[in-house]
Amino acid sequence: MKITKEAVELAAKTIEPYIHRTPVLTSKSINELTGIDFYFKCENFQKIGAFKIRGGMNASLSLSPAQLKNGIATHSSGNHAQALAYAAKTLGIQAYIVMPKSSPQVKIDAVRGYGANVIICESNQAAREAALEKIVAETGAEFIHPYDDYRVITGQATCVKELIEEVPDLEIVITPVGGGGLLSGTCLGAQFFKPSLKVYGGEPEGAADAVLSIQSGKVEKAPFINTIADGLLTTLSEQTLAIIKEHVTDILLVSEEEIIAALRLIYERMKIIVEPSCVVPFAAAMRNAHLFKGKKVGIILTGGNVDLTKFGSWFPPKNDSLS
Amino acid sequence: MKITKEAVELAAKTIEPYIHRTPVLTSKSINELTGIDFYFKCENFQKIGAFKIRGGMNASLSLSPAQLKNGIATHSSGNHAQALAYAAKTLGIQAYIVMPKSSPQVKIDAVRGYGANVIICESNQAAREAALEKIVAETGAEFIHPYDDYRVITGQATCVKELIEEVPDLEIVITPVGGGGLLSGTCLGAQFFKPSLKVYGGEPEGAADAVLSIQSGKVEKAPFINTIADGLLTTLSEQTLAIIKEHVTDILLVSEEEIIAALRLIYERMKIIVEPSCVVPFAAAMRNAHLFKGKKVGIILTGGNVDLTKFGSWFPPKNDSLS
Repeated sequence: MKITKEAVELAAKTIEPYIHRTPVLTSKSINELTGIDFYFKCENFQKIGAFKIRGGMNASLSLSPAQLKNGIATHSSGNHAQALAYAAKTLGIQAYIVMPKSSPQVKIDAVRGYGANVIICESNQAAREAALEKIVAETGAEFIHPYDDYRVITGQATCVKELIEEVPDLEIVITPVGGGGLLSGTCLGAQFFKPSLKVYGGEPEGAADAVLSIQSGKVEKAPFINTIADGLLTTLSEQTLAIIKEHVTDILLVSEEEIIAALRLIYERMKIIVEPSCVVPFAAAMRNAHLFKGKKVGIILTGGNVDLTKFGSWFPPKNDSLS
Repeated sequence: MKITKEAVELAAKTIEPYIHRTPVLTSKSINELTGIDFYFKCENFQKIGAFKIRGGMNASLSLSPAQLKNGIATHSSGNHAQALAYAAKTLGIQAYIVMPKSSPQVKIDAVRGYGANVIICESNQAAREAALEKIVAETGAEFIHPYDDYRVITGQATCVKELIEEVPDLEIVITPVGGGGLLSGTCLGAQFFKPSLKVYGGEPEGAADAVLSIQSGKVEKAPFINTIADGLLTTLSEQTLAIIKEHVTDILLVSEEEIIAALRLIYERMKIIVEPSCVVPFAAAMRNAHLFKGKKVGIILTGGNVDLTKFGSWFPPKNDSLS
C-alpha cells in the first residue's frame, strides 16, 4: 500500500482527539554549547509517554467495526504494547498483547493497567510469533505490527508534520531508527510537507543493522547487540527499508558513551526525562557537528518511559567534592 | 521593611526581561490517582533551573549604580549561588560567592561558569560567615542573603502571582520551606493577589525546624537533620517566620519514603526532572489527602538542579523481571 500525503493528513485529523500536540522545546544553553539550533519535539510528553500512540491509534482507527469487534493484538515488550492497550481501552475493545517474560514488571503492569489481556511467553522471537498466532487464531483479533504496517507508518508521519508546522524554516530532522517505523514515516512526512527538509537517522553502534541494510539494499541483522538504547534493537522490514533507502540523507552511528553524554546533557540542561533510545539522534548531531553547525535541526524525542532503577548504571555515583 | 502589593508588582515588572514565565503543567494520571486537581508551577524550567533567580535578580536590580559598582556577594552551596552569579553576569558586575568545600564540583563549576569569583571555605556556618565578611570588607560588594532579605522575599512572591494569573480559581498553594524565603513570599503574594487562597508549607521530618518555629513562635533548629531534600536544611529567619506565622494555614511534614515516592511519581508520570526538595509539598498533599481531595491545589516545583549521580541511591536497582 503506497502512503500518500492525503493519507497522512487524514491520519493527523483522525488521531487528533486522542493524542497530545506535544511541545517543541529549545535550550539556549545547548545551542550555545553545540553551535546548532536544536528544536526538540517532545514525544516523551505524549499519551502513553511515547510517539508510538500515533501509529497504534491510527492503525486501530483504520479498522472497520467488523474488524474491531474481535479486538487487536500484537507482540511487544515496549511502547507499542502500551499504545495498542491504550487504543483498545479508548475504543472499548479488547487488546491481546504477547510480552516476553523478560519484560520489566513495570511495563507489564502498565499494559494490564489499560485493561489489556497480557500473554506471557518465552523471550525469543519464535515464541513471540507462535504465541501471537495462537491468540489471533483463538480470538479473531486484528494483528497490528509495531512498524511493518502502512497504517502505523502513516500515523508516525504525523509527528514530523506537526514539527514542520511549528518550525516552518526547519532544515534538518533526525530520528532514531529501530524497526524504521518512525524514520520511514518521517521520510514520507518530510517529502509531503517540506521537500527541502533533509532527514537523517541515528543508530547505536551496538545495534547497527539499519546502516548495513542501507548499504547492502536488503534487511540485515546487526553484527552485534550492545546498547542501552533498548527501543532500537529490532531490524528494518522490507517496507520500512524501501522508504528509508529512497529518502534518507544518511544514518549516523553513535557510541554508548555518546548516548550517555547526550542523556546527561538533556537531563541536566532541559530538566526532562527521555529514554536512552531517543537521545541517539541528538548524540549523532553532536558527533557530526560539521554537518549541522548553524543549522535548524529538529530532533524527535521519541519517549520518556524509563525504568528509574537503571539511572544508577547510567550515572554511577562518584566522589565529586573538593575535600 | 514592610513588603507591599505594589512592591511585588514592581518586582514582577523589573525581573520580567531576565526570567522565564514558567509553564503550569497538569497530569491527568496523577489527578486520577490522587483525587486532587494539581497545578504544577514548573520553576525547574526557570533560568538557572530554580525559582531563586527571582529573588536574586530582584535584589540585584534594587541596588543603586553606586552599590552595584563593587559587585554582589553571598555564601551558598546551592541555587542562590547560581542566581547571584547569573544576575551579576547579566548586569555586567562581579559576584563573590563563598562556597563550602563540601559543595559538589558540578555546582562550583556552574557558578564559575557564569564568571563569578568563587571563594572556597571550610564546611561550617562560622567559616562561611567569616569568609563572606572578609570578602565584603575587601571589595565593598553588597551582601545579598539567600532569604533573610525583603528584596529577595519580594522577588520570590512573583511566582505565586504568576500561578494565580494562570489558574484564577486556585484554592490552595503549597511550597517547600527551608529558610522561608519562598513560603513567606508566597504568603504575601496570596494575601495581595487572592486573599482566599490558602497557603501551606511542606517540610521533611528530617529537617523539621519550621514546624517547631511556628509552634513556639521563635526561630528553632531542627531536632535532627536527615533528608535527601538538601535545599531545605536551613532554619527560618525572624523576618520570614513573622510573615509565615501570620499567614500560613499549616506546615505539613513528610517522611523520606514519601519524598522518594513523590519523586518517582513526578519522574514517571510527568517526565520532568525536579529536585527532591521540591516534591515535598506534593508528598505532603498526598499524605494529607483528606485536606485536599477535589480541590485545585498549586504546587511550586522549585527547581531541577539535581546531581544525576544521586539517582542510583534514590531508585536502587532491583530485579523486576518475571523469570
